[in-house]
Amino acid sequence: MCNVKLENMDWISYREAIQDGRCRIILPVGAIEQHGPHMSLNPDVLIPSHIAEQVAQQCDDVLVAPAIAYGYKSQVKSGGGNFFPGTTCVSGSALEQYVYDVLMAYVNHGNREFVLINGHFENSMFLCEAADKLVKQCTLRGLEVRVYLLSYWDYISEETIAKVFPDGFTGWAVEHGGILETSIMLEIHPALVDMDRAVHVDPATFPPYDVFPADPSWVAESGTLSSPVKATAEKGRLILDECLKGIARQLRSA
Amino acid sequence: MCNVKLENMDWISYREAIQDGRCRIILPVGAIEQHGPHMSLNPDVLIPSHIAEQVAQQCDDVLVAPAIAYGYKSQVKSGGGNFFPGTTCVSGSALEQYVYDVLMAYVNHGNREFVLINGHFENSMFLCEAADKLVKQCTLRGLEVRVYLLSYWDYISEETIAKVFPDGFTGWAVEHGGILETSIMLEIHPALVDMDRAVHVDPATFPPYDVFPADPSWVAESGTLSSPVKATAEKGRLILDECLKGIARQLRSA
Amino acid sequence: MCNVKLENMDWISYREAIQDGRCRIILPVGAIEQHGPHMSLNPDVLIPSHIAEQVAQQCDDVLVAPAIAYGYKSQVKSGGGNFFPGTTCVSGSALEQYVYDVLMAYVNHGNREFVLINGHFENSMFLCEAADKLVKQCTLRGLEVRVYLLSYWDYISEETIAKVFPDGFTGWAVEHGGILETSIMLEIHPALVDMDRAVHVDPATFPPYDVFPADPSWVAESGTLSSPVKATAEKGRLILDECLKGIARQLRSA
Amino acid sequence: MCNVKLENMDWISYREAIQDGRCRIILPVGAIEQHGPHMSLNPDVLIPSHIAEQVAQQCDDVLVAPAIAYGYKSQVKSGGGNFFPGTTCVSGSALEQYVYDVLMAYVNHGNREFVLINGHFENSMFLCEAADKLVKQCTLRGLEVRVYLLSYWDYISEETIAKVFPDGFTGWAVEHGGILETSIMLEIHPALVDMDRAVHVDPATFPPYDVFPADPSWVAESGTLSSPVKATAEKGRLILDECLKGIARQLRSA
Amino acid sequence: MCNVKLENMDWISYREAIQDGRCRIILPVGAIEQHGPHMSLNPDVLIPSHIAEQVAQQCDDVLVAPAIAYGYKSQVKSGGGNFFPGTTCVSGSALEQYVYDVLMAYVNHGNREFVLINGHFENSMFLCEAADKLVKQCTLRGLEVRVYLLSYWDYISEETIAKVFPDGFTGWAVEHGGILETSIMLEIHPALVDMDRAVHVDPATFPPYDVFPADPSWVAESGTLSSPVKATAEKGRLILDECLKGIARQLRSA
Amino acid sequence: MCNVKLENMDWISYREAIQDGRCRIILPVGAIEQHGPHMSLNPDVLIPSHIAEQVAQQCDDVLVAPAIAYGYKSQVKSGGGNFFPGTTCVSGSALEQYVYDVLMAYVNHGNREFVLINGHFENSMFLCEAADKLVKQCTLRGLEVRVYLLSYWDYISEETIAKVFPDGFTGWAVEHGGILETSIMLEIHPALVDMDRAVHVDPATFPPYDVFPADPSWVAESGTLSSPVKATAEKGRLILDECLKGIARQLRSA
Repeated sequence: MCNVKLENMDWISYREAIQDGRCRIILPVGAIEQHGPHMSLNPDVLIPSHIAEQVAQQCDDVLVAPAIAYGYKSQVKSGGGNFFPGTTCVSGSALEQYVYDVLMAYVNHGNREFVLINGHFENSMFLCEAADKLVKQCTLRGLEVRVYLLSYWDYISEETIAKVFPDGFTGWAVEHGGILETSIMLEIHPALVDMDRAVHVDPATFPPYDVFPADPSWVAESGTLSSPVKATAEKGRLILDECLKGIARQLRSA
Repeated sequence: MCNVKLENMDWISYREAIQDGRCRIILPVGAIEQHGPHMSLNPDVLIPSHIAEQVAQQCDDVLVAPAIAYGYKSQVKSGGGNFFPGTTCVSGSALEQYVYDVLMAYVNHGNREFVLINGHFENSMFLCEAADKLVKQCTLRGLEVRVYLLSYWDYISEETIAKVFPDGFTGWAVEHGGILETSIMLEIHPALVDMDRAVHVDPATFPPYDVFPADPSWVAESGTLSSPVKATAEKGRLILDECLKGIARQLRSA
Repeated sequence: MCNVKLENMDWISYREAIQDGRCRIILPVGAIEQHGPHMSLNPDVLIPSHIAEQVAQQCDDVLVAPAIAYGYKSQVKSGGGNFFPGTTCVSGSALEQYVYDVLMAYVNHGNREFVLINGHFENSMFLCEAADKLVKQCTLRGLEVRVYLLSYWDYISEETIAKVFPDGFTGWAVEHGGILETSIMLEIHPALVDMDRAVHVDPATFPPYDVFPADPSWVAESGTLSSPVKATAEKGRLILDECLKGIARQLRSA
Repeated sequence: MCNVKLENMDWISYREAIQDGRCRIILPVGAIEQHGPHMSLNPDVLIPSHIAEQVAQQCDDVLVAPAIAYGYKSQVKSGGGNFFPGTTCVSGSALEQYVYDVLMAYVNHGNREFVLINGHFENSMFLCEAADKLVKQCTLRGLEVRVYLLSYWDYISEETIAKVFPDGFTGWAVEHGGILETSIMLEIHPALVDMDRAVHVDPATFPPYDVFPADPSWVAESGTLSSPVKATAEKGRLILDECLKGIARQLRSA
Repeated sequence: MCNVKLENMDWISYREAIQDGRCRIILPVGAIEQHGPHMSLNPDVLIPSHIAEQVAQQCDDVLVAPAIAYGYKSQVKSGGGNFFPGTTCVSGSALEQYVYDVLMAYVNHGNREFVLINGHFENSMFLCEAADKLVKQCTLRGLEVRVYLLSYWDYISEETIAKVFPDGFTGWAVEHGGILETSIMLEIHPALVDMDRAVHVDPATFPPYDVFPADPSWVAESGTLSSPVKATAEKGRLILDECLKGIARQLRSA
Repeated sequence: MCNVKLENMDWISYREAIQDGRCRIILPVGAIEQHGPHMSLNPDVLIPSHIAEQVAQQCDDVLVAPAIAYGYKSQVKSGGGNFFPGTTCVSGSALEQYVYDVLMAYVNHGNREFVLINGHFENSMFLCEAADKLVKQCTLRGLEVRVYLLSYWDYISEETIAKVFPDGFTGWAVEHGGILETSIMLEIHPALVDMDRAVHVDPATFPPYDVFPADPSWVAESGTLSSPVKATAEKGRLILDECLKGIARQLRSA
C-alpha cells in the first residue's frame, strides 16, 4: 500500500509524483465542533480525511494534503451553534484566505487540479469563494486550474438512507451528531466514540429564521440535532463504501 | 396607509418613529441575477422588498430600509452561475462589510432589532457573518442587538407547495426562475414578466459536486433551473400571502 | 419610451443591448442622509438616479444600473455630519470594495465604459479609488476600461446659479439641503418634500478645520447648511435641464 | 529655542513632556509629488512640517511627530495626476491604516489630542476616515480623544490672496505648483526651488468630470496647474505668517 | 496515560477539563516545507506537536489543540526558500488571522492562557502579531489573557549542542534539515526519515542580504542548509529530553 | 557633491536620472523607538538614512527615497518592548501595505531594482512580505523587479566587533541602545546623544520564550538591553565605515 499523504513524502519523491502534471491534490476541510457527549470534537476533520486517503489509494495520481482543521462558525440549525465549549471556529475571511493561500502554494508546485472534500456544512460558501478567487488569479497568471468542491454526504443515495434509517429518515438538516456521523466514526475511529454516553434526542425542529446572537435553547442540551443511539459501525461501513465509490468514480472520470 | 420606507421620511419624522427603541428595521438583501428570458434581473431584490413593505404595513414599529441590490456570486446549482450576462454579483467580503456597516449605522441611530429578508440563496452565509460580527461589536459597545435572518421561501408550507405544484414539486434546489419566483413576480410586478418568452426546461439535475471554473453546460440555455411555464399570478398571491402571514406573525411575537 | 434601467430587462435582452461593446453603464451613487425636516433621506440617491435615467433616454447605448444607495460618512461641513438619526453611512473601504466589485461584474459581461454619477460629495475620493483599482486590474487582464466620475452639480453654470440665487449665491460649500437640492426634489419627487416644514437658516459658517468626534453645535438644528425656503420646482427644472444637457453632451462626444 | 520635534527627544524627556496629559501632537501629512520643473518633489511634506514646527514653538504643550511622507494618489485636477515620474503615492487604505496606527501609538503613550496638518489635498478623506476610526476605537477603550484635521491653505484670507495675486486670483483649484506653494518654498527652502526652470502656464481648465485612466493631455507638460513665475519669498512669508498665526491661535484656544 | 489532545475529547469532557479556568491550551504551529530528500515535509508540524503532547502529559491542566499545519513562506536563509516543490506556505496575513481566530475561539470557551509552540522559524513575527492583537481585543472585552510564544530550539543548552555536534556546531542559522531536526525525527517518527537518502552538504554560507525573487543557487540542491548525515535517534532523544524538561518546567512555574 | 535624495530633485531631473532603467532606489526603513535616556527616538531611521545617502554618493545610479519612519511593534527581547512612551509603532499589515505601495509607485516610474535598508530588527518579516508580494504582482504585469533587503548590522565583521568590544561582545541580541547604536549616533548625530544621561546596565538576559502582554520587568528601567557607556564616535566611525564599504561593494557588483 503506497502512502498517499503528501506530507509524509520527501520533497524529491513529491516532485516526482506530481511532475507529469496529472496529479490531483485532495484537501480535506473540516471543523473542530462538538458532536454530542458521545463523540470527539473532530469528526468533521477525520471523516473527510479518511475518505480522502481511501480515495487516493484507489485512484492514480491523487495525493492528500494536510487537512484544514478549523472551519467556519458552527450555526445552530446545522451544527448546534458556535457557543458550545469545544466548538472552535474561525471567521469566514480567515478560512477563505487560508485555504486560498494553501491552494495557490500547491499551484506553484505545478498542480492544476484540486478536490476539496468538505466535512462541515458551514464551510461551503467560503470554500466557493476561495476556489473562485484562486481560479481567477490563476487565469491572470495564464494557468488553467480546476477545483472540485464536494461534501461527502452528497454521495449518499436514497437506498442507503433507507437502509440506515429503517424507521424513516428525519432529514439531512438534523444530521449533526446523529446516526450518519456517529456510524462513520464508529467504523473509522471507534476509540473516539463512546456509545454509553450517547443521548437520545428527538429530531430538532427550528423556526424558519436564524437569530443572532444565537439562542441556545433551540438546541438539545447534548448538542446533537438528532439521536445517535441507533448508530452502528456497520451502517458507517455502508455509508462510507458508497461515498468512497462515488468520489473515486468521479476522480477517475474527471 | 402610512409610509414604511424610511428613506422617504425626513429625519425628524424618522427620529420620532424610532425614539422609543422598539422599532425593527427590515433590510431586504437581494441580487441582480438572470432569471430566464421571461423575467427581469431583479426578482431577488423586488420580492424581499415587497414582502418587507407589506409586513411593515401590517405590524407596528417596523420600518423598511433601502435594499441591498447586489448580492453574492450566483452559483450554478442555485442561481445558474456567475457567467451569465446580467448576473451582476459582488464578492463575499464586499457584501459582508457593506451590510455590516449599514446595520451599524442603524444601530448608531438607536435601533436594536433588525430583520434581514434575503431574496438570494447565495447571500446567506455572508449575511450570517455580518450579523455575527455586528452583534459581537455591539456587545463590546455595551449594546444588546438582535438580528433575524430569514429567506422568505422558508415560510412556504408543504400545503402551499402542493397547490402550486399539482403535478409534483421538483424540489427547492431547482426553484431558480421557475414557478415560485415567476408566480410571485407576476403578482407583484407583472410588467417585468413576459410569459411569452418563458422557456420550458426539465428540472435541472447536477452532479454531487461543484466545480470552479463553473461549467456552463450544466445549466439550460435559458438560465432557469426548472420550468416557469405554469407560473400564474394566482399562485404568486397564494405564496406571498403565506410568507407575509408567517413573517408578520413572527415579528409580532418577537 | 424605451426602458433604460438594466435591472428591468431580462438577461437575453440585456445581452443584446450590450453585445456590440458600445454600451455605457451609468451607476448612480448616493447616500442615505438627512436633508432637513422638509425632505426625505434619499435626495442623494434619487437625483443622480433621475439624471441617469433621463440621460440614458436621450443617448444611444446607455443603460442605468441599480444605484448604490448607502454612501460614505456624512461630514459636518458638507453634509451636516454623521450623527443625525437617518444619516446612514458606510466606511470608505466598504463603499470602495462594493463599487469596485459591481463595476467588475459589469466588465465581466463585456462592458468597457462606465459613468459614475455621484450625488453625495463625501463619496468622491472612494469612488476615485474604486475606479483607479478597476482600471489597473482590467489592464492586468488585458482589458481597456474607462470610468467617468462626475458629480451632477459640476454641470451647473454661473448663469444658472445667478437665476436660482437672485439674492446672491451663498456658495457650494453650504448647499446641503438648501435651495439646489430642494428645488430639484420639488421637481422630480414633490411628494418627498414638504415645504411647510422647511426651516430658514443662515448659511453655515465653519472654522477652517475639521474635528473628530464632530461637534454637533456647528450645524443648525434643522440639519441643512443653508436655507431651503426659496426652493421651487421651477428652479429645480432649470438646474436639472442644464445638468442633463451637459452630461448628455459629454456622453455623446465621448 | 526648545526642540519641538519629538523624534529628537529621548524617551524620558518625552514622557515628562506629555505626562500631564495636555500635550497636543501635530502630525504633518504630505506627499511625494511633482510640483513642476522648478521645485523639488516634497513641498507637500516640507510645508506642513515647517508650519508644524513653527506653531509648536509658539504654543505650549505641542510636539511635532515625524511626518507621513507618502500620501494618497495625485489626481489630475488637483495635483496633476498619478502618472508623472516622481509622483510617488500610496493607496487610500494604506494611508488610512498607517496614519491610524501611528495615532493609536501616540494615544497609547497617554496623548489625547492630535492635529493633522495636511499638505496634500488628496489625503483629506482618508485622513477623515483614520481620525473617525481612531475616535471610535478609543471610545470603546474608554478614552476621549480629539483629532483636528486641517489643511494649511484654509487659513489664508482673501486679503492675503489679493496681495499675492495682484492681477487676480485664478482659484484654489489650480494652485498646484503655482504661486502659493512656490512662494512658500522660496521662503522656507530656497535651495529646493530654481526659478530659472519655472515654466509659465495658463491656469488649467478641466472638463467637469474625472476620467480613469487619467488623460495626461489635460495637464500642462510642466506639471503645474498654474504659473509659478510670479512667486517670491516675500509672498511666501506673507502667506506663512497668516497660516501660522491662524493655526497657533486655534491651538491656544482649543 | 490520559489523552491530552482536546480534539479527541467529547465536548462535555472538554468543558469539565477547562471549567476551573486553569487550563493552558498549547497550539503547535508549523509548516509544510521541504527538509531534504531524506525526510518528510512535516517535521515543523510533527516536532512541536510531539513536544506539546509530551509536555501536556507531564503537566497538570494542559491540553493540546489541533496544530496549524501550514506556516509562513519559507525563506532561503532559514528554510531553503519558498520555491521548492513541497514547500507549501501561506501569506503572513492569512497565518496571523487564522491563528488569531483560533485562539479567540478558545478564549470564548473560557480559556485564558495559551502556549504557542512554534516549529518553523519564519512564523515567529506573524505569531507575535496574532498574540498581540488577541491580547488587546481581549482587554477590550475585559478579559485577561496571556500568550506564551516559544520555539522549541531555544530550550537547547550549549552543553547539549556540544554533545550533538562533537566536531563543532555550525550555527543555528543553518540548522534546516540538518542534524538537529533529523535526529529528532529519527527519534519520534523514524518511518518518515530515510538516512540512505541523506545528502551531505557543507554548512550553507549566505550573503548578508536577502533578495526577492529568491535565488535558488544560494541553496544546496538537496534543500538542507547543513548536513544531516550524522543525525541519530540518540541525539534526537537528548535534544528532546532537554526541550521537554525546559518547557514543562516553565509551564509548571507560570 | 551631487544630491542623492530623490525628494529634493524636481521631477524632470528625477526622470532623467532614472530613464536608462539602471537606477537603484534605496528605501530606508526604521522605527520611532526608545533607545535609552541618552539618545533620541530616531536612531533606527537616522542610521539607515545616513548609510543610504553615503552609499548613494559612492555608487552610480543610486537614489535615496524618503524613509519609512514608523516601523513594526518593538519586541521586548530586541527593542525593549512596545510599552515605553516614545516607542511609536504600527501593525505589521500597515507597514507591509505602506511599503508595498511605495515600492510599486517607484516601479510605476520605471525603476526595477530596490534596496531596503532596515534599521529596526522587528521590521524584517513584514518587509519580506512586502517585497515578495511586489515581485509577484510585477511578474503578473510582465515586469522583472528585484528587491534587496538588508539590515546594516549584518555587514559588521567579527574583527570590528572585537575592536568595538575589547572586553568581549555581549551578543547581537542585546544590542538595543547599547554600544553599537550609540556609537554610530555619536558619529553621525552627536547632538541627539547625551552621554551624561547614559545608564549602565548589565546585558539583558531573557527567558527562552516571549509573553503577551509583555512583562516590563524583563527590561532595565532605562530601556536599553546593554550598556551604552563605552560608546564613542570613533567606534561609530569604525562600524559605519565597514557597513558602508560592504553595502557599496554589494551595490556595485549587483
